[in-house]
Amino acid sequence: MTNPPHLLTLADLTVPQIKRLLNNAHALKNQSVPWLYPAGGLPPKRAKALRLPSQSLFNKSVAMLFSKRSTRTRVAAETSATLLGGRALFLGKEDIQLGVNETVRDSARVIGGMCQGIFARVGDHSEVEELAKYSPVPVVNALSSLWHPTQILADLMTLHQHSQLFGTPAPEAPHVPEHEQPQGNKHNKSLQKTKRPHAELPPLRPLTIAYVGDSANVLHDMLVTFPRFGHKMRVATPADKKYRAPDAVWDRVVELGCDKDIMWTDSPHKAVEGADVVVTDTWISMGQEAEAEQRYKDFAGFQVTEELCRVGGANPDWKFMHCLPRKQSEVDDEVFYGPRSLVFPEADNRKWTIMSVFDAVIGKWDLDGDRWSKEVIDPKTGRILLQQDAE
Amino acid sequence: MTNPPHLLTLADLTVPQIKRLLNNAHALKNQSVPWLYPAGGLPPKRAKALRLPSQSLFNKSVAMLFSKRSTRTRVAAETSATLLGGRALFLGKEDIQLGVNETVRDSARVIGGMCQGIFARVGDHSEVEELAKYSPVPVVNALSSLWHPTQILADLMTLHQHSQLFGTPAPEAPHVPEHEQPQGNKHNKSLQKTKRPHAELPPLRPLTIAYVGDSANVLHDMLVTFPRFGHKMRVATPADKKYRAPDAVWDRVVELGCDKDIMWTDSPHKAVEGADVVVTDTWISMGQEAEAEQRYKDFAGFQVTEELCRVGGANPDWKFMHCLPRKQSEVDDEVFYGPRSLVFPEADNRKWTIMSVFDAVIGKWDLDGDRWSKEVIDPKTGRILLQQDAE
Amino acid sequence: MTNPPHLLTLADLTVPQIKRLLNNAHALKNQSVPWLYPAGGLPPKRAKALRLPSQSLFNKSVAMLFSKRSTRTRVAAETSATLLGGRALFLGKEDIQLGVNETVRDSARVIGGMCQGIFARVGDHSEVEELAKYSPVPVVNALSSLWHPTQILADLMTLHQHSQLFGTPAPEAPHVPEHEQPQGNKHNKSLQKTKRPHAELPPLRPLTIAYVGDSANVLHDMLVTFPRFGHKMRVATPADKKYRAPDAVWDRVVELGCDKDIMWTDSPHKAVEGADVVVTDTWISMGQEAEAEQRYKDFAGFQVTEELCRVGGANPDWKFMHCLPRKQSEVDDEVFYGPRSLVFPEADNRKWTIMSVFDAVIGKWDLDGDRWSKEVIDPKTGRILLQQDAE
Repeated sequence: MTNPPHLLTLADLTVPQIKRLLNNAHALKNQSVPWLYPAGGLPPKRAKALRLPSQSLFNKSVAMLFSKRSTRTRVAAETSATLLGGRALFLGKEDIQLGVNETVRDSARVIGGMCQGIFARVGDHSEVEELAKYSPVPVVNALSSLWHPTQILADLMTLHQHSQLFGTPAPEAPHVPEHEQPQGNKHNKSLQKTKRPHAELPPLRPLTIAYVGDSANVLHDMLVTFPRFGHKMRVATPADKKYRAPDAVWDRVVELGCDKDIMWTDSPHKAVEGADVVVTDTWISMGQEAEAEQRYKDFAGFQVTEELCRVGGANPDWKFMHCLPRKQSEVDDEVFYGPRSLVFPEADNRKWTIMSVFDAVIGKWDLDGDRWSKEVIDPKTGRILLQQDAE
Repeated sequence: MTNPPHLLTLADLTVPQIKRLLNNAHALKNQSVPWLYPAGGLPPKRAKALRLPSQSLFNKSVAMLFSKRSTRTRVAAETSATLLGGRALFLGKEDIQLGVNETVRDSARVIGGMCQGIFARVGDHSEVEELAKYSPVPVVNALSSLWHPTQILADLMTLHQHSQLFGTPAPEAPHVPEHEQPQGNKHNKSLQKTKRPHAELPPLRPLTIAYVGDSANVLHDMLVTFPRFGHKMRVATPADKKYRAPDAVWDRVVELGCDKDIMWTDSPHKAVEGADVVVTDTWISMGQEAEAEQRYKDFAGFQVTEELCRVGGANPDWKFMHCLPRKQSEVDDEVFYGPRSLVFPEADNRKWTIMSVFDAVIGKWDLDGDRWSKEVIDPKTGRILLQQDAE
Repeated sequence: MTNPPHLLTLADLTVPQIKRLLNNAHALKNQSVPWLYPAGGLPPKRAKALRLPSQSLFNKSVAMLFSKRSTRTRVAAETSATLLGGRALFLGKEDIQLGVNETVRDSARVIGGMCQGIFARVGDHSEVEELAKYSPVPVVNALSSLWHPTQILADLMTLHQHSQLFGTPAPEAPHVPEHEQPQGNKHNKSLQKTKRPHAELPPLRPLTIAYVGDSANVLHDMLVTFPRFGHKMRVATPADKKYRAPDAVWDRVVELGCDKDIMWTDSPHKAVEGADVVVTDTWISMGQEAEAEQRYKDFAGFQVTEELCRVGGANPDWKFMHCLPRKQSEVDDEVFYGPRSLVFPEADNRKWTIMSVFDAVIGKWDLDGDRWSKEVIDPKTGRILLQQDAE
């Protein structure tokens, strides 16, 4: 068996790989949702056509090593694993103290010998790197001190799902994959359609995305991802250098050529200028409670409000995103619960994007989608019994 | 999709709705128990006839938001969800602090966006009401400051199962549903029998039920339920007014016309007079540990014993119930472990009644049983693949 | 229904019963591993031939009562239950305090009324005995103050799997069960082969096994087991009597005639003389943290190293085992991560042996293997629907 794939940051993935994860999330959502209706809620015809989503975790277990509390990520992971036919096994800080009773190395080998994947929410990013180094099975970063890849997948999915709010995509952005474009042979095209019951995510025009807040893991994965999808980023953090992205992050930003599409300032007003989307996050991450008072001072004026965006000159149709949980200091109720807010679809998409990552990385060891269309489906039960190798 | 049904107290349900939940529990138990035998323990003929219970939670997840510790309710819920084909996901107070890191409103929306139901054991009843207000999926109250509906369903099921202990039902209590009564056409009747392999719960004669203890959530749901099933209640609580049912509860009792069948006293002896069943509960609910000393004083003389019931003049065949966990101060060993005690069947029924509630409320969004007979069963596997709409 | 079987120590099992558990573990592993490959990783032909392992926990739940933290045992149990079609339900010390809120007796009856088995990691051994006394379902000891039966099953499985490292078995050790030995009727034999797709564990020559450390639960189950399998034990513990096996253990050792094959010393060098395998364990078990300083003094010279074994005169090909988690004081890195170390296969086998115990004890109530070959397999899905009784 080859080395397992891991997902520690989106910086490690190519744009096509990220797109495949997003399209897979979209397809898995479409296949799963009908099963989640109240029983009896589906008309008989549709009921007959029901197919299970990928069962790539069938009989398998994913260990969730969570040294920090979590609701969204945890529930998303446990419900996703269920839909993929498997089981996510939660190990909180009461259950396992990574690196305390035994080395991370030993834990990685032992847990990886019993489970088929590890989903880790640890402290310092070096811990998840250590896990990946020694684990015989895929490791997915559920949030670390530096990166938060699954959150940014959910953000991207949400923006694509709401692309109509931002107008049609510009013709110079060929987001439609080649094989989906109009072809001469009409017959072939219809065949393709038959095979593809769930359309891809809608394309999205290049956006200006403003981030107003602390430079933490959520922002970091945006910095290495959004510019590669054609979006410009405008970031406002307080003036103090400690609110800037650390070198370990910025090096990846530069390496991926993302820096030229990122504007950094200490003025929230400047950041939201022309913004189609305004994003913020908590000012006080877990573990920073002692600095709370100083941080509240430093973030004065950073609350996202209608006025901030009006004065700053955001696109009048600007939308709002937040990874939750949310404090009122970061964004007021008018914005958070108002029509601009995409926060709840964004939260829902944590589930579908984590499901996609579990399917591709842990279930199939396949970030390139080579094995995704070779599923053996039992015609009697609709159960995808197994994936087949190419001949 | 319509609004989701919730179950916060039995006061919100009609008598037919409660009866359907009880009969569903009885049927689910009968269908489930054979699967739980040690493998190999079933004769081949019976094994062939095995059918799965309702799989209305297939692929689905139920979030258990438990801010208080629990054994019975938790284990009942987790094992029930498994039998219904789904998964219950436990979130204890270490995992989620409802209302602390984010508002109950946001948690309800986010968790309800990922799970198909919420089973909540919270503190103040207003919290579970808040959950129900904002959750997009059904919320079931697993115990609150005011109500404990699933416990009283288990109590009723237990009494019906043991109806032979109380003598045959009086003819004026037509508990047998109309379509079950003798009909002219013998052929039709036998057809009905074929379709209904698991008989309904046996009917129960009107009982006198004495409750000797604190006016807490368990008693409250009895007060709004037992009288509607034809039973009389005699309640003894200490003289202090704080041991009386709060207005929020008593208003519902009056509204449902239950008050006329409830006698309230501060004398345990008076309460057990003529009692067919004697019930008690903990004197010190979770959160009341500070008042323990005062409470032990106030409840002097409230221990359920043979003597109390003899002196008080209970029905010589009186039976005992307790929702557990039990302290010896509340009931002595002779009664608790003796032949009068129904406490362990009562505990077992927590599972079947919670399973019934999960099936009807969370799985089917159907408290009226309209969809319960339209299941599509795979003849090969016995798996109930889906519920069908009426034509 | 008869009384449920329990597994509190291997001392309660016969040698054939232990062998059946080991062979069952081996077979379950062979059947399970192909399902755990990354989907797409199996050639189509092998994929077709896939059969599920025993589904004896289908629809069933196993309660895990863990008053002590655990990684290996817990993950092994939860992933095993999943593979057997069931669910293991973790109840940690935050979730249930055995004997605090209610008696162990009541908890055993209530949990045993809802779950189909109890896997208990408790404090004093008397607690697991109390559970077994009152539980209506099988109780398996996941570790107690005295015994650790599932660990020693994993150790034995590991030694048999690596039997080639120790040379071929001596002819005088007839480990091959009678019905497996050459018979006159060739036809019959081939029939047997057809029925037995997964070979038994390889036989193992009699070994000399040295244990260098504290006399704790792991050693105790070795003392009552290894000699019965033909292996000699050489044990070194510090001179103080408190490091000796307690009477409750030694009585069983003598009763089973194991004492004559056990040499006990306070010299690690003497213990490893002629050893084929050297085993150690933690010096400070959970709960003994206060004695740590004294214990470190008492165990001076007990660290397992190349030098200790060279000087002591171990078999030059000696192998190393440790139940983990491991501290460096007990064994140095050279041995622990070196080619002599069997610790990680040993950890992996926790899963397969616990799976075997769950299957036999909890799923089938059958320690003698009488029902193991009568599974009803659905030819369509490969699902083992049910075990059948003998005619």
